[in-house]
Amino acid sequence: MSSSTGLQLGDASYLLEDAEVSCLFAPMAERAAILAFERALSKAQHSVGEIDAEALAAIVAACQDPQLDEEALAAGMRRDGVIVPELVRQMRAAIGPLHGARFHLGATSQDAVDTALMIRMKRVIAILQTRLSALLVQLETLIRAQGALPAMARTRYQDALPFTIGDRVRTWVAPLQGLADTAPDHFPLQLGGPIGLREAAYGRNNKAIAEAMAADLQLSFASEAWHTDRRAIGAVASWCLDLATVLGKVGQDVAIMAQTPVGEIRAPGGGSSAMPHKSNPVGAERLVTLARYVAGNAAMLQTAALHENERSGIAWSLEWLALPPVLIGCGSALLTAQELIEGLEPGHRGPG
Amino acid sequence: MSSSTGLQLGDASYLLEDAEVSCLFAPMAERAAILAFERALSKAQHSVGEIDAEALAAIVAACQDPQLDEEALAAGMRRDGVIVPELVRQMRAAIGPLHGARFHLGATSQDAVDTALMIRMKRVIAILQTRLSALLVQLETLIRAQGALPAMARTRYQDALPFTIGDRVRTWVAPLQGLADTAPDHFPLQLGGPIGLREAAYGRNNKAIAEAMAADLQLSFASEAWHTDRRAIGAVASWCLDLATVLGKVGQDVAIMAQTPVGEIRAPGGGSSAMPHKSNPVGAERLVTLARYVAGNAAMLQTAALHENERSGIAWSLEWLALPPVLIGCGSALLTAQELIEGLEPGHRGPG
Amino acid sequence: MSSSTGLQLGDASYLLEDAEVSCLFAPMAERAAILAFERALSKAQHSVGEIDAEALAAIVAACQDPQLDEEALAAGMRRDGVIVPELVRQMRAAIGPLHGARFHLGATSQDAVDTALMIRMKRVIAILQTRLSALLVQLETLIRAQGALPAMARTRYQDALPFTIGDRVRTWVAPLQGLADTAPDHFPLQLGGPIGLREAAYGRNNKAIAEAMAADLQLSFASEAWHTDRRAIGAVASWCLDLATVLGKVGQDVAIMAQTPVGEIRAPGGGSSAMPHKSNPVGAERLVTLARYVAGNAAMLQTAALHENERSGIAWSLEWLALPPVLIGCGSALLTAQELIEGLEPGHRGPG
Amino acid sequence: MSSSTGLQLGDASYLLEDAEVSCLFAPMAERAAILAFERALSKAQHSVGEIDAEALAAIVAACQDPQLDEEALAAGMRRDGVIVPELVRQMRAAIGPLHGARFHLGATSQDAVDTALMIRMKRVIAILQTRLSALLVQLETLIRAQGALPAMARTRYQDALPFTIGDRVRTWVAPLQGLADTAPDHFPLQLGGPIGLREAAYGRNNKAIAEAMAADLQLSFASEAWHTDRRAIGAVASWCLDLATVLGKVGQDVAIMAQTPVGEIRAPGGGSSAMPHKSNPVGAERLVTLARYVAGNAAMLQTAALHENERSGIAWSLEWLALPPVLIGCGSALLTAQELIEGLEPGHRGPG
Repeated sequence: MSSSTGLQLGDASYLLEDAEVSCLFAPMAERAAILAFERALSKAQHSVGEIDAEALAAIVAACQDPQLDEEALAAGMRRDGVIVPELVRQMRAAIGPLHGARFHLGATSQDAVDTALMIRMKRVIAILQTRLSALLVQLETLIRAQGALPAMARTRYQDALPFTIGDRVRTWVAPLQGLADTAPDHFPLQLGGPIGLREAAYGRNNKAIAEAMAADLQLSFASEAWHTDRRAIGAVASWCLDLATVLGKVGQDVAIMAQTPVGEIRAPGGGSSAMPHKSNPVGAERLVTLARYVAGNAAMLQTAALHENERSGIAWSLEWLALPPVLIGCGSALLTAQELIEGLEPGHRGPG
Repeated sequence: MSSSTGLQLGDASYLLEDAEVSCLFAPMAERAAILAFERALSKAQHSVGEIDAEALAAIVAACQDPQLDEEALAAGMRRDGVIVPELVRQMRAAIGPLHGARFHLGATSQDAVDTALMIRMKRVIAILQTRLSALLVQLETLIRAQGALPAMARTRYQDALPFTIGDRVRTWVAPLQGLADTAPDHFPLQLGGPIGLREAAYGRNNKAIAEAMAADLQLSFASEAWHTDRRAIGAVASWCLDLATVLGKVGQDVAIMAQTPVGEIRAPGGGSSAMPHKSNPVGAERLVTLARYVAGNAAMLQTAALHENERSGIAWSLEWLALPPVLIGCGSALLTAQELIEGLEPGHRGPG
Repeated sequence: MSSSTGLQLGDASYLLEDAEVSCLFAPMAERAAILAFERALSKAQHSVGEIDAEALAAIVAACQDPQLDEEALAAGMRRDGVIVPELVRQMRAAIGPLHGARFHLGATSQDAVDTALMIRMKRVIAILQTRLSALLVQLETLIRAQGALPAMARTRYQDALPFTIGDRVRTWVAPLQGLADTAPDHFPLQLGGPIGLREAAYGRNNKAIAEAMAADLQLSFASEAWHTDRRAIGAVASWCLDLATVLGKVGQDVAIMAQTPVGEIRAPGGGSSAMPHKSNPVGAERLVTLARYVAGNAAMLQTAALHENERSGIAWSLEWLALPPVLIGCGSALLTAQELIEGLEPGHRGPG
Repeated sequence: MSSSTGLQLGDASYLLEDAEVSCLFAPMAERAAILAFERALSKAQHSVGEIDAEALAAIVAACQDPQLDEEALAAGMRRDGVIVPELVRQMRAAIGPLHGARFHLGATSQDAVDTALMIRMKRVIAILQTRLSALLVQLETLIRAQGALPAMARTRYQDALPFTIGDRVRTWVAPLQGLADTAPDHFPLQLGGPIGLREAAYGRNNKAIAEAMAADLQLSFASEAWHTDRRAIGAVASWCLDLATVLGKVGQDVAIMAQTPVGEIRAPGGGSSAMPHKSNPVGAERLVTLARYVAGNAAMLQTAALHENERSGIAWSLEWLALPPVLIGCGSALLTAQELIEGLEPGHRGPG
């Protein structure tokens, strides 16, 4: 298996389908973001006079059109446990002996990898926000179209009192609107050098360099490195988890409302190989599955927030495995919800 | 087992020792907070003219000195899955036939239980904040006393570059200070009536009643009920989890620094039954255990955030089991960290 | 908080009510089991001639009627992170200077604590097996009484084809019977001495001592110490988890069958403080809650199976916190299932 | 994203590299295993006289060389939440109107998908067993070569008593040998028809059909369908989890032994982009990461063992997402361990 294949999940991969978010976790996207970090670093170092114009030009040119040896990169990843050492080696060779050493100057692998992650997480959240806004519009449309239809409020799995479809949908809208209003907006630059001491690594210009880089990359400025402080990542994951949980509730509610003897709503359905008469609320179920999948991965991610010493290869690698499922799973849940809500129709009967 | 015994953990209970936080989860504290909710409700209903002064006086008097039949309460809890129905029955009987029906008027069990939880969570967070501030002072003292001593920065379990004890301690201080600056302050009143529709339950005065209650109980006003939207609880748990995780890092780092051949620091130690020469860094280990314990329970709590329908007995009950360990575990971790930091002494040697 | 209080869960403790299993995790039960280990060790050492009759008599007498200073024990637990060092100190003092040193001879804390756990886990499993057998009888009775009544098979939350109540109950019986047939029966003695090398700790008689102890305590003989190999504990927890999961399915199915518009079955119900007409399937919901609670704790327990070095205080302590909830939660689920099945009555209507 | 791409993890995919196991979870392998189920079903139905020779020949021929429309399959998966309905539609069309209806006769999607999973799980376990045997040989070689070298036994992160490298390695061998001796060997055929009632679906020949299929596919015969009883899957996952946990301990121990000031062992190392003097124990760390990754996914898998009703699309789909990481993660851990043990060299100094 080439490392670019990702994790094989057979046909179940469809559950996580989200081309837009997934492609940000392709190795190519990761490389591009790492090179964006390196270019921003060199530009900032040039702006404070630590790299001359010629070196900067050589670096920028190499970043523009990197000729990477993918096989050697994969071997480097396996050997070093992180892509950067081999990537730096290849880039320095491409830049040439005169300026090569100026590339990645003062930085450590984690500076590049964490910043590259933040660049892409910011894009993910923008994508999710757009979808969430569209979903909220869909839900308002649903309320206008079917909101007055009767439904039964149910507590502890028993009929409680009659209310309306709109009343239930509003219990979905409220937390979704709340999440739309509090989307993450803190995506900090990582810059600390080998052991996380920015000043030791970047000298008296360290603050200027970090500020210039953050501005260039449109990331937040953090006054210190956060190599072992993963709260910024956790906050983004937390928001995605809350969002996936609410969408899971939407799915669970629809599955219950669409039960044959309940019939409060009709969900767009899938077929059965043995029972052609059935219409399965596949999208609704998928939302519950994804909520639990995102929660499971977010739990793993949280355990990866505890780094021993100044950098834990153990914790950091676990984060790499657990974070994409959280983001992609949430993205897929939003797409699924959009399709589900679009297809909802009045059920065959209101409450008993 | 009487329901007041809690979960038996044998001698391991000491790991969760935190008398101040624990006592907020004793059944007595829960009852008191529920009665505070009921009294505030009656007072607010009186203020808008829905309950007369005599009824209010009878209710307030009964809340002041409730004569509860504990055995019947336990039986009610077992039967109803929630303490409120039997509590209301007893209180109404105590108030008497004339005014009894005014007690808990329009409210549902979840209004009382969730608000009672918020009242106590707010107290818990205040306790934790006080401890966190004290811990930050201790850490500054540690930096002043031992911060200049040499230490070795370690990445991926290997010696990287020399730095100082202070450099490492500052990687603890930064996230702890960040958490101190962002402590949860949103503890919303719950008020929705049987199916979460506040207006349907409380009529045209519903907003005035909720505002008066929130003010009376010093809770946040929420414009809607949040019976199935558990984000306010999740946000508090998330903060505790982040805090326990950072304290876990402190413990893990100290355990590594105090290893015999490293000797960067001396942790106050425990004895061994077989090896009298040993001094075990028991407090440091306990911090890592608690970080993982809090994380495990927070993960369970998150899965309890998905309520089917208008109220899930399943999810709600799971929340009751998973939330106290998060809060008590975090509280115990803060006490442990205070004791650990207090006892830290310079190690027998600096880095190699 | 005294360490005997356990973890405060407020009124939610009722969810874990299981006096018979819980009392095995009271500190007193733990002490008694530790002393059973120590007595068996001394008896075995006497049988191979390493302890004389007088010393043995003194030790057995002290174990018979231990006068323990509970306050000092709690302080010892806090200081040492394990109860044994202080317990040994007190016992040796009680036995007196002449024979005291013969007590706990060659053993390490973990030998005593792990063996004491196995003694009690064996009792727990015997209790659970008895309950499971009784539950299976109840289910056969249910099949005889209501098995022929019509029900609707449902796949993916949609009506599939009609079958009977008996058909569904048999999907509960099959895995429960399978679990009854494969109950754990491996409860190994722990004996390894300070660093897990039994021969180094117990000399040439080490095998004879371990065999005699295992026979005396009715535990399995293990040819080596398993200080860092927790598979025997994991196997017991796994069985409990599978059992709790099947019982959770029973609860989930009953909650769905008892939904008002489904009405396939009537579950014994709880009352509501706001809606007196409701009958909530509280026991059914509790089974699902417990399944998820046991699963959450079992997941934590599994992460505690990885010990660094020859003994991890971190992992071991986490095991102490995560294991009792698995066993007590499973025990409570069996009691809940018995009560639920006992109270099931035909619903108000069959399918379709 | 095509559904065959799997889950994108960027360069972190290398952590899960295991071509041999991964390819069993490629969509193509899944299809082939489903068709093996269908062919075995038709053969068995022919053997009891329910399908004539001509129909069987047509089915076998179509299975031999299926011309599947991948795009339509992906669309079917998305629509139906399971691959089988569209696969059956295409296969029946290919077989032709005369015999097409004989294909998948009496079966439900879950029969095909679960059996196809068991076929591949059996292969996975065979692969893992081979690797485990080889690893045990390597460890014996390591003991012979370096076993007599001095090491320090450590308990609770402190030096305890001197022992040897061999003593520690034997604490890895014991559980690994135990696991080698108890590898899963129960891979049951799934056959139940639409609602899990085998006799209703397959008539009086149902037992003969199931027995013939199990023999043909070299799977275990199960006397009933196990649509909602996932213990067979859980048992395999549990074994993988125990194995990954022991390998995680190997990694954690090596990382600690290879610490610069400990120097008990030298692990094959990776480079750093900032500190060329370092040699990071990348493989050792990877083992710990994988142990935690497998544990996280196994925990998710366990929650997927609770199916509501006769089939839960929610739980079943979650199983599809959580199981491959357990198997592939364990496979990758075995490969990593082999490489790590191969490269271990004596450290620069023994204990203290």
